[in-house]
Amino acid sequence: MAIDFRIQHTDISTSGRCGVLTLSRGVQISTPCFMPVGTRGVVKSVSPQEVWGLGYRMVLCNAYHLYLRPGHDVVSRLGKLHHFMNWHGGILTDSGGFQVFSLVGLRKVTSEGVEFRSHIDGSTHFFSPEKSMEVQAALGSDIAMCLDDVVAYPVEKHVAAQAVDRTYEWAKRCAAVQKTVDPALFGIVQGSTFPDLRQESAEGLVSLDLDGYAIGGLSVGEPSDVMLEVLETTVPFIPQRLPRYLMGVGTPVDILDGVVRGVDMFDCVLPTRNARNGKLFTSFGSINIRNARYRDDPEPVDSKCSCELCSNYSRSYLRHLIQEKEIYGHRLSTIHNLAFYQRLMADLREAIREGKLSTYYGQFLARMEDSND
Amino acid sequence: MAIDFRIQHTDISTSGRCGVLTLSRGVQISTPCFMPVGTRGVVKSVSPQEVWGLGYRMVLCNAYHLYLRPGHDVVSRLGKLHHFMNWHGGILTDSGGFQVFSLVGLRKVTSEGVEFRSHIDGSTHFFSPEKSMEVQAALGSDIAMCLDDVVAYPVEKHVAAQAVDRTYEWAKRCAAVQKTVDPALFGIVQGSTFPDLRQESAEGLVSLDLDGYAIGGLSVGEPSDVMLEVLETTVPFIPQRLPRYLMGVGTPVDILDGVVRGVDMFDCVLPTRNARNGKLFTSFGSINIRNARYRDDPEPVDSKCSCELCSNYSRSYLRHLIQEKEIYGHRLSTIHNLAFYQRLMADLREAIREGKLSTYYGQFLARMEDSND
Repeated sequence: MAIDFRIQHTDISTSGRCGVLTLSRGVQISTPCFMPVGTRGVVKSVSPQEVWGLGYRMVLCNAYHLYLRPGHDVVSRLGKLHHFMNWHGGILTDSGGFQVFSLVGLRKVTSEGVEFRSHIDGSTHFFSPEKSMEVQAALGSDIAMCLDDVVAYPVEKHVAAQAVDRTYEWAKRCAAVQKTVDPALFGIVQGSTFPDLRQESAEGLVSLDLDGYAIGGLSVGEPSDVMLEVLETTVPFIPQRLPRYLMGVGTPVDILDGVVRGVDMFDCVLPTRNARNGKLFTSFGSINIRNARYRDDPEPVDSKCSCELCSNYSRSYLRHLIQEKEIYGHRLSTIHNLAFYQRLMADLREAIREGKLSTYYGQFLARMEDSND
Repeated sequence: MAIDFRIQHTDISTSGRCGVLTLSRGVQISTPCFMPVGTRGVVKSVSPQEVWGLGYRMVLCNAYHLYLRPGHDVVSRLGKLHHFMNWHGGILTDSGGFQVFSLVGLRKVTSEGVEFRSHIDGSTHFFSPEKSMEVQAALGSDIAMCLDDVVAYPVEKHVAAQAVDRTYEWAKRCAAVQKTVDPALFGIVQGSTFPDLRQESAEGLVSLDLDGYAIGGLSVGEPSDVMLEVLETTVPFIPQRLPRYLMGVGTPVDILDGVVRGVDMFDCVLPTRNARNGKLFTSFGSINIRNARYRDDPEPVDSKCSCELCSNYSRSYLRHLIQEKEIYGHRLSTIHNLAFYQRLMADLREAIREGKLSTYYGQFLARMEDSND
């Protein structure tokens, strides 16, 4: 077994559960977990020691980006991704399906796979399910994702149905490759906003007996309530005993909404990208440090936070760094936002253990509404 | 006395000397020293803890930049610069003279001071010697520099002579202000490439009994041998017992050339700026990590270096980060170059203590010529 997943507690009044995901390399990840995004083999602006020190044990890297540069062959020769980027935690790799989906006008999808043009130099490439698995295995991923066919929102049903079929066929081919390579393999449920398609997609993929299942095709522009409906119609078709992963999500509230519906894993660029733009998550809501009101503010960003930023610097100084586009400002605010997300996940796990997830949810929303810039 | 400077050893066959500069706040700096540049109140891409950990005890900040943003008044209200930027070492502030000099076409110099337009928003400002001292004192500088009149290279003698006079008059006015504020005060010797003007400038400033003297108006485009001639004609007119500071210099070889001529202090953006462009100093010469030859290179940048970069990462990984403009790549290469410069200064001090500076100089040049990309 490439991974082991144990559920330790389930909440009383919601579908929330907490547990431990153990990778074949021995790394243990408490769930529900958030995975910082390290697209190109680094979580932007922070060191792997800092990511680890904040309590994270798994990051997401992108097969598509690393395939293009520096090349999965280079990474493989350099001792694979963990060694290359000096990260001793777990690595989940995105298959490239979503990135290729984002290359509007630069891709051609057939039943064989996806032909796409590089966003860097326009060169033509082809990702088949087999190729995607080869790349993810060469990178040394702990958890590989099946290549999936992602469709836009909104989409006509027949297009969504074709993508469900294709995603299933491709997952079957990924599963065949997985027998000969190291990574665990997660399927990705598609089906857009159509409950029957979501069910069909989930049931098909579950029949392949993969190591975990992601809910894909979300965070592509659909309203928040649509995302939650899809989640509610999809999660019941994923076996209780397996990890469930909501890809590319999201805001703190999105994560709460996912956790109460039984999701175990999340990833998103939001905390790191927002940080670089000066948008910080705090215990009293989010703030934009570029706001002129912080020019003379001697207080820490969040007096309840003990991260490197909040322990050592004023809002005034961070505002100055961000205004001047100083690299160290990007680092400090990234550390802060990642500390916030890690604390959120720890609080959620604690609330589940104590059977108080509903109460926590209500309190959190009230706190967040206190102050927003 | 705002600072104390003790010379502990002088070299046998050169003018090199090593000593200790003690600031009023108790910070001790071994000389010859290099000061990393923290223009806007941060050494680009690294934390003050990292700068300190590398052994640096003094950085240079720019009065001009901090005056414009966030404003010296803001910094002052926030507890002055040391507290603002969380730096417990010394801070030397540039007066703004050189920055204003760089604003070609945007400045007007009179005997009263310099009127200039902000490089940020075009707003008009006026720096008199008194204003420059007020700004530097408000920032909480440990060593302030006199506002000086910098001229381009090459320049006609009568223009250089006028700048010498003006620099002297301004220094007198700075010295008058200094009696009422905290920072120590260094004069800046001008005179372009004219030995008699350099002598006149030095003698005039020395008569003001300042705490130390800088050789200014260099690194403005003159050839290297011209810089060394100026150094040789200027240094003898600065009292032995006082610190001598060569502003804006330079490459490792420039620093060696300065140290053998009796210079004690240096600052330059070179190690930090080059780092961000992938140009790294090593024990076998400088390399450009963007070179394709490093694509698959599993070796550390410099096997003789034990910095965060060289202890943990391959050339291949750093090349990848720099190619992708990843912020963490800027940090790692900055740490590396600052570690190199600090080791260079420590080696120079050691060579002076052992009376072997000439030998070290020769060996260093030979090593540097071994390999250059």
